[in-house]
Amino acid sequence: MDLESLKTLLNGVAGGNVTVDNAAESLKTIACEDIEFAHIDHHRSLRKGFPEVIFGEGKTPEQIIGIMERMMNHEKIILVTRVSPDKGEAILSAFPAAVYEKDARMVVWGEIKADPARKGTVVVISAGTSDIPVAREAAITAEAMGNTVETVFDVGVAGIHRLLGYKALMEKASVIIVVAGMEGALPSVVAGLVSSPVIAVPTSIGYGASFGGLTALFSMLNSCSSNVAVVNIDNGFGAGYMASAINRSGN
Amino acid sequence: MDLESLKTLLNGVAGGNVTVDNAAESLKTIACEDIEFAHIDHHRSLRKGFPEVIFGEGKTPEQIIGIMERMMNHEKIILVTRVSPDKGEAILSAFPAAVYEKDARMVVWGEIKADPARKGTVVVISAGTSDIPVAREAAITAEAMGNTVETVFDVGVAGIHRLLGYKALMEKASVIIVVAGMEGALPSVVAGLVSSPVIAVPTSIGYGASFGGLTALFSMLNSCSSNVAVVNIDNGFGAGYMASAINRSGN
Amino acid sequence: MDLESLKTLLNGVAGGNVTVDNAAESLKTIACEDIEFAHIDHHRSLRKGFPEVIFGEGKTPEQIIGIMERMMNHEKIILVTRVSPDKGEAILSAFPAAVYEKDARMVVWGEIKADPARKGTVVVISAGTSDIPVAREAAITAEAMGNTVETVFDVGVAGIHRLLGYKALMEKASVIIVVAGMEGALPSVVAGLVSSPVIAVPTSIGYGASFGGLTALFSMLNSCSSNVAVVNIDNGFGAGYMASAINRSGN
Amino acid sequence: MDLESLKTLLNGVAGGNVTVDNAAESLKTIACEDIEFAHIDHHRSLRKGFPEVIFGEGKTPEQIIGIMERMMNHEKIILVTRVSPDKGEAILSAFPAAVYEKDARMVVWGEIKADPARKGTVVVISAGTSDIPVAREAAITAEAMGNTVETVFDVGVAGIHRLLGYKALMEKASVIIVVAGMEGALPSVVAGLVSSPVIAVPTSIGYGASFGGLTALFSMLNSCSSNVAVVNIDNGFGAGYMASAINRSGN
Amino acid sequence: MDLESLKTLLNGVAGGNVTVDNAAESLKTIACEDIEFAHIDHHRSLRKGFPEVIFGEGKTPEQIIGIMERMMNHEKIILVTRVSPDKGEAILSAFPAAVYEKDARMVVWGEIKADPARKGTVVVISAGTSDIPVAREAAITAEAMGNTVETVFDVGVAGIHRLLGYKALMEKASVIIVVAGMEGALPSVVAGLVSSPVIAVPTSIGYGASFGGLTALFSMLNSCSSNVAVVNIDNGFGAGYMASAINRSGN
Amino acid sequence: MDLESLKTLLNGVAGGNVTVDNAAESLKTIACEDIEFAHIDHHRSLRKGFPEVIFGEGKTPEQIIGIMERMMNHEKIILVTRVSPDKGEAILSAFPAAVYEKDARMVVWGEIKADPARKGTVVVISAGTSDIPVAREAAITAEAMGNTVETVFDVGVAGIHRLLGYKALMEKASVIIVVAGMEGALPSVVAGLVSSPVIAVPTSIGYGASFGGLTALFSMLNSCSSNVAVVNIDNGFGAGYMASAINRSGN
Amino acid sequence: MDLESLKTLLNGVAGGNVTVDNAAESLKTIACEDIEFAHIDHHRSLRKGFPEVIFGEGKTPEQIIGIMERMMNHEKIILVTRVSPDKGEAILSAFPAAVYEKDARMVVWGEIKADPARKGTVVVISAGTSDIPVAREAAITAEAMGNTVETVFDVGVAGIHRLLGYKALMEKASVIIVVAGMEGALPSVVAGLVSSPVIAVPTSIGYGASFGGLTALFSMLNSCSSNVAVVNIDNGFGAGYMASAINRSGN
Amino acid sequence: MDLESLKTLLNGVAGGNVTVDNAAESLKTIACEDIEFAHIDHHRSLRKGFPEVIFGEGKTPEQIIGIMERMMNHEKIILVTRVSPDKGEAILSAFPAAVYEKDARMVVWGEIKADPARKGTVVVISAGTSDIPVAREAAITAEAMGNTVETVFDVGVAGIHRLLGYKALMEKASVIIVVAGMEGALPSVVAGLVSSPVIAVPTSIGYGASFGGLTALFSMLNSCSSNVAVVNIDNGFGAGYMASAINRSGN
Repeated sequence: MDLESLKTLLNGVAGGNVTVDNAAESLKTIACEDIEFAHIDHHRSLRKGFPEVIFGEGKTPEQIIGIMERMMNHEKIILVTRVSPDKGEAILSAFPAAVYEKDARMVVWGEIKADPARKGTVVVISAGTSDIPVAREAAITAEAMGNTVETVFDVGVAGIHRLLGYKALMEKASVIIVVAGMEGALPSVVAGLVSSPVIAVPTSIGYGASFGGLTALFSMLNSCSSNVAVVNIDNGFGAGYMASAINRSGN
Repeated sequence: MDLESLKTLLNGVAGGNVTVDNAAESLKTIACEDIEFAHIDHHRSLRKGFPEVIFGEGKTPEQIIGIMERMMNHEKIILVTRVSPDKGEAILSAFPAAVYEKDARMVVWGEIKADPARKGTVVVISAGTSDIPVAREAAITAEAMGNTVETVFDVGVAGIHRLLGYKALMEKASVIIVVAGMEGALPSVVAGLVSSPVIAVPTSIGYGASFGGLTALFSMLNSCSSNVAVVNIDNGFGAGYMASAINRSGN
Repeated sequence: MDLESLKTLLNGVAGGNVTVDNAAESLKTIACEDIEFAHIDHHRSLRKGFPEVIFGEGKTPEQIIGIMERMMNHEKIILVTRVSPDKGEAILSAFPAAVYEKDARMVVWGEIKADPARKGTVVVISAGTSDIPVAREAAITAEAMGNTVETVFDVGVAGIHRLLGYKALMEKASVIIVVAGMEGALPSVVAGLVSSPVIAVPTSIGYGASFGGLTALFSMLNSCSSNVAVVNIDNGFGAGYMASAINRSGN
Repeated sequence: MDLESLKTLLNGVAGGNVTVDNAAESLKTIACEDIEFAHIDHHRSLRKGFPEVIFGEGKTPEQIIGIMERMMNHEKIILVTRVSPDKGEAILSAFPAAVYEKDARMVVWGEIKADPARKGTVVVISAGTSDIPVAREAAITAEAMGNTVETVFDVGVAGIHRLLGYKALMEKASVIIVVAGMEGALPSVVAGLVSSPVIAVPTSIGYGASFGGLTALFSMLNSCSSNVAVVNIDNGFGAGYMASAINRSGN
Repeated sequence: MDLESLKTLLNGVAGGNVTVDNAAESLKTIACEDIEFAHIDHHRSLRKGFPEVIFGEGKTPEQIIGIMERMMNHEKIILVTRVSPDKGEAILSAFPAAVYEKDARMVVWGEIKADPARKGTVVVISAGTSDIPVAREAAITAEAMGNTVETVFDVGVAGIHRLLGYKALMEKASVIIVVAGMEGALPSVVAGLVSSPVIAVPTSIGYGASFGGLTALFSMLNSCSSNVAVVNIDNGFGAGYMASAINRSGN
Repeated sequence: MDLESLKTLLNGVAGGNVTVDNAAESLKTIACEDIEFAHIDHHRSLRKGFPEVIFGEGKTPEQIIGIMERMMNHEKIILVTRVSPDKGEAILSAFPAAVYEKDARMVVWGEIKADPARKGTVVVISAGTSDIPVAREAAITAEAMGNTVETVFDVGVAGIHRLLGYKALMEKASVIIVVAGMEGALPSVVAGLVSSPVIAVPTSIGYGASFGGLTALFSMLNSCSSNVAVVNIDNGFGAGYMASAINRSGN
Repeated sequence: MDLESLKTLLNGVAGGNVTVDNAAESLKTIACEDIEFAHIDHHRSLRKGFPEVIFGEGKTPEQIIGIMERMMNHEKIILVTRVSPDKGEAILSAFPAAVYEKDARMVVWGEIKADPARKGTVVVISAGTSDIPVAREAAITAEAMGNTVETVFDVGVAGIHRLLGYKALMEKASVIIVVAGMEGALPSVVAGLVSSPVIAVPTSIGYGASFGGLTALFSMLNSCSSNVAVVNIDNGFGAGYMASAINRSGN
Repeated sequence: MDLESLKTLLNGVAGGNVTVDNAAESLKTIACEDIEFAHIDHHRSLRKGFPEVIFGEGKTPEQIIGIMERMMNHEKIILVTRVSPDKGEAILSAFPAAVYEKDARMVVWGEIKADPARKGTVVVISAGTSDIPVAREAAITAEAMGNTVETVFDVGVAGIHRLLGYKALMEKASVIIVVAGMEGALPSVVAGLVSSPVIAVPTSIGYGASFGGLTALFSMLNSCSSNVAVVNIDNGFGAGYMASAINRSGN
């Protein structure tokens, strides 16, 4: 329940269109609704500006559908991350209006609308073709949260001129998400070219001494550029969420 | 090299004014000559909005003083990080106008002025008394870059009510830096209470299975709150720099 | 061998009734013969207060059934842990009176009865929906050992108010088991609120820098609250067993 | 905020006595205002049953003395852990009534009194001579918290008969703390002999593949005995604190 | 597009056989061709002397085929690495002229020709039978890049005389690739016998403390012979590529 | 090349019978030609006393059968380790006289005969039921190499009296192999009871912080008993082989 | 107290030269003498064939001297390991008959005598000059336990011919100790040349990816030769002890 | 002793200017000279083209001087690496003709001469000021081995245009050594710009998640450019040696 919906409800009470009992009923669960297997944090929209996002991994389709059903009473948009194709199919059967983003392995329910509080552009850059799913997860998340997003894929440091062709786009960005596996060098190079904040996302792409993304992660934490902060391996969702938080900050 | 220039070159070849060998030589390097040209009319302070910061560790006082001398011709403020007390003393002998921040182990030369482009407040929170040096490094860096900074120290998760007393301050922040060692749990709790971006700084405080800050680092990367990104262990400077970049973004 | 027996033996030597070689043979092993004697009048259930629990992983259904058959002659309750659904089915075919707890992946045979020596309540708290199986393993183990158990699921630190709603329950607990994956911050927060002992159980829930539960484990070992001790990753059984040992101690 | 208060507020809105904006403001923070309220009538000593303990490492003698001075107004006993000999000397100059425990590197101020709520005995066992400082830290902590403590030192598994001579003592313990470095095998053997809870403390004693105590730590987490939980490497204080929490639980 | 092809095109323009527009069309993509999921670095042949090599892992057959199609316009040889048998089959259906090397899991399209600039011999030595796939990947890569290659398999250090039988071959090599798993000792021994550079390739062969090749990797990095440098675990391709770069250097 | 040969060569040079170039060529390689000569009159079975053992993992049944066929001409017994059941079946189809040891995952071809040079007894002890396959691999290997072997299974340290019942057997052993997973404590306890050498074999049994056997491995390397040496995780074969080497040594 | 001394005492009792009370007094402490800071395991000589060895690290000179005094009543030889030069000096002041071995950092008290039960030769081989201290510790330990020892230093694998010159010595050895740091390859090569058991000792010599000896340790555990077992990093004492146990086994 | 010196000696024998006995005396130690603490590999110059290099760490000045004295009879140039200033001073007292390179911590004795077999240029590039000592060690080693060397320092990836200014120099190199700490990204970028082989040297510069150079090491092993191979952390000497081996190869 966002602030706008809350005020609408209260105006209904003030104007006599909603009874106190009905309003109380709606409001009494906003802090925390306890269903059998989850405590849904409905209060989060008010506190954080965006509803709780469902982490799909390790939940059954039934559990996800159950949580979505409860949330639909309060929220205008619902995101589910880390959804395998078969789970995605099951969820879409229950909610045909939802969309399954195959690359990013996400389900999006509700209408994505630009948020006027987010004036800047979020630019998402990925190093290799194999990093695209994580980059897409970041981009969809940021878009779902109301940001304008532009993406550039496959511009790794082994051919540095490919990246430099996008210098103008990088300079106009309000925040840049850089997604890279293997040696994870791209965020340092990008952050050296701009003054805006860079969110670095290591991916598990690579083999041997890439340690499932750990080398990229540590490399990014040691960036010799200082306008860089890092999220967990393959955490495109977190990067998009953080970018959205940044794109609104300071206003 | 744009399409027009390319055709001009090819017309030169077609008309016999340019030899095949000269044209081949020109074309062999087009991507990087563009790059080389680009770097002529850009220098670092324009690109990044703040002069290079001197990493004091592993440099002799003489080296640091030499670099500072050259920078003073161009810059209004100079920061040196990771300066031991004896190095600090040597630098201050050379530049009596500089200040040595003992806690933060930094030298600051020049006048710190508020930057009107940075309208929000940077809040720096630390978990324990021993985390204060890193928190101070973050705070001084952000201030030196023109931000308004407020600090709250010693509000770890073992007494959660201490933290909650600062809810109003946290809500007004444009960006929050959270500094913590040991289990590194504080950023998750803070980020769960606000919608602004949180920069988490793990510290090397702890012993045994704290692994010099690694446990705090990994803990922060696994935050169940999504508006969190992480910098390197004890990297207060980087957190302050990143916070400053965020506080200007979107404008 | 006490002092009296020793002197008797030596008197035998002095009187010529015991040869030097026989005496030497007797004396060579006194430390461990004492030990060997001790184990004759002690058997495991007397020593530990609960029968051996069968670790189901890596054993065939036939091996498990065979061990259960022998134990049924002596024991009133039998627990089998880490039982996959197909093994569970095979065991229930052999012993229809047994119960297969799907979530917790356990088989329980025999009647669970409250043990009057265990007066307090064991409270089991889990951070996320995905941590429930481990939490359930802990709860069932503690119940099977005669304890009163209450459970609270899905109250992670990203929404701290969800946890605080259970403050009264936590305060009445004799011992609290806290189950969490990802950053593993929940035990610190819970232990900061109560004076009773907290058993922390890291789970393998998470990805990337969660390292299959290692980050949660290390985080818990570094808890800034002191009334916390930790068991192995995903070891719900061990936590329940330890909690039961604690709930009887001191009486 | 209970249901009644909520309806009162809504009636205010319905009756025009409360503006929609004011009501929205109140409702936006209900969860955390509850929390904030809670912390007003609870302070730490009531909540945890023992005053905060000062972690001496990384604090100057001046800082420690300052904290002790403030605590003396409220508390009857003060513990400081990880105090080097020279810091200890400085503290004792300020508070001649305090005692510096050299082995355990602790300062104790105030009178240690038996707590009648702690009826059982805490037994502290260590594997080698070099583990004694950690064992002493555990023993002094438990004593300072009001427990009866007995200690057995240097009974490692390479001479198992030395340990077995203390079987009676182990059986009467309410909780046993086992301190060991190197391969960390002692807690498994002790826990296999008793039904009471065992707190295992790995120490950093050893070299090479002991990894500063990590091998002992992991060994203890993998104990094939189930009545074992583990604290951080060299964390004698935590073990004593946890043992004290256990020794009171269930009452 | 290599230098020879470029000059042919420019001669066509100079001679009037190719229009400026057609030449411009061909050349405008040489720096970087952007297809939906990849930025193909056609400029690489000019810059690096060999076209971009396609890393097959994590790409669909459709993606690989799409990239190959674009590359065929510009290149004479195309390599695809880490191709599973089923992907290999799909690619060969699209391009029947391509060859699938089963052992090495590579696809090679185009004609392999000796490069006269590479006068020396690349010798590939492997320690065990299980290391052969990686050794084959190295050998095929070096051959595809125009080098003369000789291979010696299964000459590990447990029977040192087997290796010594190949001393003459090793001495004539321009560069030696040594492939080994387990303890990774072979490169040290080989490098101790020759003066030419040795490229060491650790493989993931082994179990337990081999850590998927990490022990071999670290062992090779610690070689007490100095003419050794190391590539990533199982990176036969990189070793072959590096050997080829070495075999041309200095000319 | 001894001093006499060296002088003969130099006399040849002095007398003009050997050219300087030929002499230089001879001298350049003296060390390694000695080596090459040495390997001619030694072959492996003479050197090591037992034929090469085939490591089955990563080899196809066809490869294994091919190697066995060649070995049968020279050897009386052939061992193949790490053979999966389906590979075992394929091998037995080719050689019906061979035996597949299911537990130990080994194929044995040829007659096992006691070797009179190995007078002592090899005792194999394992901690848990799940460690039996590794223990069996050790026992079969030692038997195949001509040793008398006795086995004791499931005597872990959580019930120390079970082990102590086998004291007489342990004391008569010439060498003891101790197989254990989880905390790996058993070798320390066994070695503390006897004077004979103990070969410790860590197994990958366990979960969480057992790290696939690494904790047991490190624990064993830190044994506080000194008559212990360790082989790789799950390396029952190596333990059996080493025990056999020991059982013959000193004769 | 060894078996011989025990029989002498008993013969004294049998012959009337020793009273029963005096004998009882002597014998009642043989299993375990409790001094303030150590439980001395006097029974060990009987059980293990060699008295307890004092681990000097982490003990004060006073503690070491105290333990030695108690042991001198029962033992003919005493070893102290890991003794720094200043501790060595203090010990020699107390016991002028003791010898301090500087390289090996050991104190030896008592007469070293060949033990006729140890017929074979222990050969100690080290890879580099820096490995000599560990090799010396192994050699002195084995000698002190009654073995004939020969040493070969500085024959690493980078110049394999240096090692092969000692082939005859290696072949006559009853057991070989191989000491190596860096890549730890030497034990594999040595074990490939002989049939006797090889005890591999990794040393902490090296830098970077040698990880203080861990790479050598893992390398040795992965030896492709099977007659190899490994002790802890820098554990020369353990290797000498194990070699001595092997050199007596089977008799 | 290099090939030239050997032929001079033999010509002396052939011409009657050197007696057979004197020549034999000189030659009899070339394979291996055994001094008390080292086996000097004089044969190495013939086998490897450069004499053994003395690793100074862990050797006393006396040991180093002793080895140098023996080598001076056979060699024209001697290198000692990892020499601390005080050891350097001691060595220079013994050999005033030697030079101590402070930055690189090396001693060089003898005349450095260009080797005509090494026609190309070795370029050494370092990322930061703190990486210079390692870069200097590489440069001096390569020069001492007869190569032409050029160096470029402080051109890290955070300001990519600084590097691109050296494109012409990089393109003319026969082999490039790239030295970098922190995230270790520089070798990927350099190798992406050239076709020559790149030797990457990780340094221990950095803090926190740089793990003493391990992050840079792993980053370099995962380079997305393929003409890269890696040496150990801080191993400037090895990089210079390998570069020299490459610069001669193929001739």
